[in-house]
Order: sequence, then C-alpha cells, then structure tokens
Amino acid sequence: MTAVCPGPHHEDEVVLLGHGAGGQLTAELLEGLVLPALDGQSGPLEDAALLPGHPELVVSTDGFVVSPLFFPGGDIGSLAVHGTVNDVAMRGARPVALSMALIVEEGLPLADLRRVAGSLGAAARAAGVPVVTGDTKVVGRGAADRVFVNTTGIGQRHPGLRPSAALARPGDAVLLSGPIGLHGTTVLSTREGLGFESDIASDSRPLHRLVAALAPLGERVHTLRDPTRGGLAAALNEIARDSGVAVEVEEGSVPVPDAVRSACELLGLDPLVVANEGCMVAFVAPSAAREALDALRALPEGREAVRIGEVPAGGPEGRVTLRTLVGARRVVDMPLGELLPRIC
Amino acid sequence: MTAVCPGPHHEDEVVLLGHGAGGQLTAELLEGLVLPALDGQSGPLEDAALLPGHPELVVSTDGFVVSPLFFPGGDIGSLAVHGTVNDVAMRGARPVALSMALIVEEGLPLADLRRVAGSLGAAARAAGVPVVTGDTKVVGRGAADRVFVNTTGIGQRHPGLRPSAALARPGDAVLLSGPIGLHGTTVLSTREGLGFESDIASDSRPLHRLVAALAPLGERVHTLRDPTRGGLAAALNEIARDSGVAVEVEEGSVPVPDAVRSACELLGLDPLVVANEGCMVAFVAPSAAREALDALRALPEGREAVRIGEVPAGGPEGRVTLRTLVGARRVVDMPLGELLPRIC
Repeated sequence: MTAVCPGPHHEDEVVLLGHGAGGQLTAELLEGLVLPALDGQSGPLEDAALLPGHPELVVSTDGFVVSPLFFPGGDIGSLAVHGTVNDVAMRGARPVALSMALIVEEGLPLADLRRVAGSLGAAARAAGVPVVTGDTKVVGRGAADRVFVNTTGIGQRHPGLRPSAALARPGDAVLLSGPIGLHGTTVLSTREGLGFESDIASDSRPLHRLVAALAPLGERVHTLRDPTRGGLAAALNEIARDSGVAVEVEEGSVPVPDAVRSACELLGLDPLVVANEGCMVAFVAPSAAREALDALRALPEGREAVRIGEVPAGGPEGRVTLRTLVGARRVVDMPLGELLPRIC
Repeated sequence: MTAVCPGPHHEDEVVLLGHGAGGQLTAELLEGLVLPALDGQSGPLEDAALLPGHPELVVSTDGFVVSPLFFPGGDIGSLAVHGTVNDVAMRGARPVALSMALIVEEGLPLADLRRVAGSLGAAARAAGVPVVTGDTKVVGRGAADRVFVNTTGIGQRHPGLRPSAALARPGDAVLLSGPIGLHGTTVLSTREGLGFESDIASDSRPLHRLVAALAPLGERVHTLRDPTRGGLAAALNEIARDSGVAVEVEEGSVPVPDAVRSACELLGLDPLVVANEGCMVAFVAPSAAREALDALRALPEGREAVRIGEVPAGGPEGRVTLRTLVGARRVVDMPLGELLPRIC
C-alpha cells in the first residue's frame, strides 16, 4: 500500500533477528522506533536507570530467551538472576530486590519449570538478593518457545560510587575482570551440538561483589560495564561513544580461553563480539588502576583481572582500536549484531 | 520413567493453559512449584511487594501476552502500562517509574511494533509515569507470538495508606469503582470474531488517581484490589482467604453492562470470572464508606462506583457468597481458571 510513497518509516519493514542482538541494528531499533515512542519520558533507556526522586536507587530490566534452556555453567533461571544483578551492579549499586515474570508455553514439563525456578531461586539466594514479586503467564503450544523469563532489579548505590558509560576520561586504565567469550560459545556450541560444550562452560555469575570491592575507590571509578550481547566490542564502543573518547586495547592482554578461540575459529567469530555473562570492564583513573586490580583479584570472580588498555589523550572520539599481537592496529567496530540470536 | 514410583512431584505433568489464568490452577502452580523454588526469599509473591529497606516503596511486575495485540479500547502497549500502574496502586502507592521489556518475534511488521511502543509511551505519559529503562529481545519465527511486553512498576505509598489483601475486617463495606466484564469479553469477542466488539470496549485504564482520592481516608481503607485475571470472583476469594473473613455481595448491585451480559450468556461465562483492567474493589471501614464512594465518584473513572456488599461478622472464613436477585444465596468459588487464556 506504500508503493507510491514509502515514506520515512519503511512501514513494509519487519523485525529481524539482528534487531535483538545488541549491536548496531538494536541501536537503530531503539533510536529509530522505541525511544521516539517514549518521547517525553524522563530520559534515554539505559541498562540501569536512576529511580526518579530516589537518586540512590537504580532499576534495570531484562528479558531472557536463551536457547537451550540448560547449558554448561547455567540455565535460563540462573542467567536471569545474574544478568539483572549485573546490570544493576554496573551502575555502582548493591542489588536489593528482584522481580520475576515467567511466560510459559503450554505443554512445558513441570519438571523443567521446577528446575528453572529452582535455579533462579538458588542463584538469587547465592547473590543475597530476594525475589519479592512475580508473575506467571501461560500461552498456547507454539506461541512461545518453552519458557521466557523477565527479571527486574532494584539496587542501592554504594556511597561515592557513580559510574556511568559517559564518564570515561583520557588517561583512564581499562580493566577486565576475567576471560571473554565463554558464555556465547557455550550456548552456541550446546545449541548446535558443536562438541565444544564438553570443554567450556558459561561464565554466568554475579558481579556485584566485584563492584563492592571497587566502592572504596569512589569517583575514581569512572565506568563499569558487563560486556553481554555484542561482547567486549559492543561494550567498548558504547563507552567510547557515550564518553566521547577513544579506547585503545592491547590484543595480547585480553584473556581468551583456548576452547573459546577454537570455537570462534570454527564459527568464524571474533571473540570480541561474543557475549559474556560473568566479566566486567572497568574504566578507572590512572591513580586508581593498581588498587582496583588488587581489589578485583582478591575475589574469586576477579582472580584473572587484567589491564587491557587505556583511554589515549586526544584520540578520535568514539573510536575503539586494537593493537594486535604483530604490532598492527585495527579498528574494532560496533558489531552489526545478527551473529548470535537467543544467547541470553 | 516414573511408572514405578511417580513420587509427589508428578514429573510427567506439563504446564496447562489454565495454569496462567489467575484461578485455582495458577495458585497451585505458585504454591506447589514457584514459591518452594524461591524458598528462603523474603516473602510470598504478591502483585506488588514492599521494597526491602524502603518500606515506602512498592514494586510489581507483569507479563502481557494478550491476543489479539489490538482490541477496542486498547492494545498490549496501553494494557502493559495500566496493568502495572494498577498493581502498584493497589498497594496504596503512586507509581513513580516503569520499566519495559519487549520479546519480539522475527518478522513482526515494524509498523506494529511502532504502534505498540507508541501506545505504551502515550499511556505512560497520560498516567504521569516515566518509562526509565527497557530491554528488547528478538526470537525466531514461531518462537513467540508477535510481541510480549513485560512492565515492572515502582510506586511510592501515600502517607497513611496501607491497604493489604489481608486487612479486610468484619463490618467493612465492599465498594466497586465501575462495571465489570468489559475487558475479557472485548478481547475474547475480538479474537473469536463474535461480533460483540462493535458494542463494547475494554475498560483498560489507570486507577492510581482513584487510589489517590482515597488517600485522605488513611487506614480506614483496608483492602484494594483490581479484579483482573479470574475477575471479581478471584479477587474477592483472594481477599476472603488472605484476611480470614467472609464476603457477601448483592448480585443486583454489581454493575454488568448489557453487552457483557449478552456475551457471557452466549459464551456460558459468569461475568464474575471475566477479567477487568479498569475497575477496583475497595474494602473500607463502615465509617468511611460514604466518604470513599463520594471520592471515587468525583473522578471520571469512578463515576459509576457502587457499594456491592460487606464483610459479615462471624461468617465462614474464606467464603464468598452472592445474594441473588431472587433472594437465594450461592457460593462464589475461586475460578479454576482455564476459561480465558491470553486475556492480558
């Protein structure tokens, strides 16, 4: 019906898998459709937002659609806790409560639902966060794929800790709390039966204790981000864009487990774009870099923390550069995003 | 595999549509499976829970899977705002923020997604509640039915207003803010093409202004509940159970629009079990009944507020009774719940 004048909205277009993958297409969907629809609201959609009237509280929401439901290192239940706990933590907050909403397909074995709910409950207890409210909806066979989980988290900010994706500054050290690529390659390998799943497991874990360990550094902690969908490449690009800085990373210092590297080579994937669910990027003032690394390494989940790069002075705004093992430099682009659907 | 010893968990059982319909099966699923999995958490799952450490704040979450997406009087976007605003309001709170999480099926026309997001944004603005954070996931064709929406709401309680489903007391007046049955019959009629949809429209609307109007009555407002899934029958049964009281309702005083009555007769449904999205039940102390009715009727959304019954002294705990038009009494049971899937 729009053949004569398709107009600016491309009404004949449809949602693509890549729109949900956390990369460039997701950004276009948000900026071109979702945010304008919410125009007049209080601000941009962020992973965790400040609660109006309660600036010490942050709130974050996430839908989990991972397939398969169960994978080495976790399942959709534990992932739904870790993902939201981590989004809350990345705003410098201690999670204080979670909500849980299930959308279940008719015919799901109750044993599977019990396993998912049990895992979710166990992960929440282990993280020390109560699930205070919930909802369950059931749809007919074929109207959903087994079970989807939404969690929303509310967190209380650590006094003095005010990290933001817009606060990275020239001179900052870029720290990474652990190896990358484990979650995405594990889920993909399990789903497709590639065989790597016997060697690797998702890194899904809560990161709020790492954030608490950085709290004494206060405002010298500039930016925290967990590189989930779109991987380290997306996280660094978002920070570079939102802070108006360049980011330089040393390829040799980014820990990539051998099994992840093998899986990525087979799949033609760059480990930098593979989703993680248990590591954290921190941009800290140079004076705090040593202390921050020590604080991270003092916890089991930060034992392998390393410095992977820095924010150069006067670098091109929004540009992420990798110094490769052979001394060359390459630009790390924002991933387009169609590579790994339903990874979380 | 469990033929010899099926055990107490019935591991061969599967999720049924009725498990999500808000009635007895939903209660069994929650009490038998979900709540035990969350054992050790801070308390029972409620529609809106108090935020630990912040007793003036409440939080509520809801997944919306209504089919069709668009129906007379609303759509999944506006419904996702009203449903959560109302859950928050029923705890005596003014909503202060919403989160929004979308699960979208690949291939959904962007025009439909724009319409849903636009309606959600417009409903939030009309309710005066900002959408502060969000998430979008995309799943492959056939893995979801077009779009599901989750909203989580955070509200701030009105000073002195502390309603709870457990606080109804003998002598209380039972008030209803408007006619019942419109939402459920409208969605069902639209979905099945029954033809009633030209005469009726969903009552989907925010109710927080009605709650604000009751705030001056303070603790004489004992219980507020919006009778959504399972209808008025489920809401009254839950209150009777949680408060340990009987409830008596006068059938002739419950407003049922003619079109709802016709639709229910055709469908063999009791209007008492049909979902509503824009009316509220209030249990108030007898001394506050007149003042509460006047306060409700002063707002457009409460113009048709009526007193429909009371809490008798010494009645059987948990029993809801209807005094019929011909003077008989019948027990209003908790609906089993398989009648109206995907109504919200």
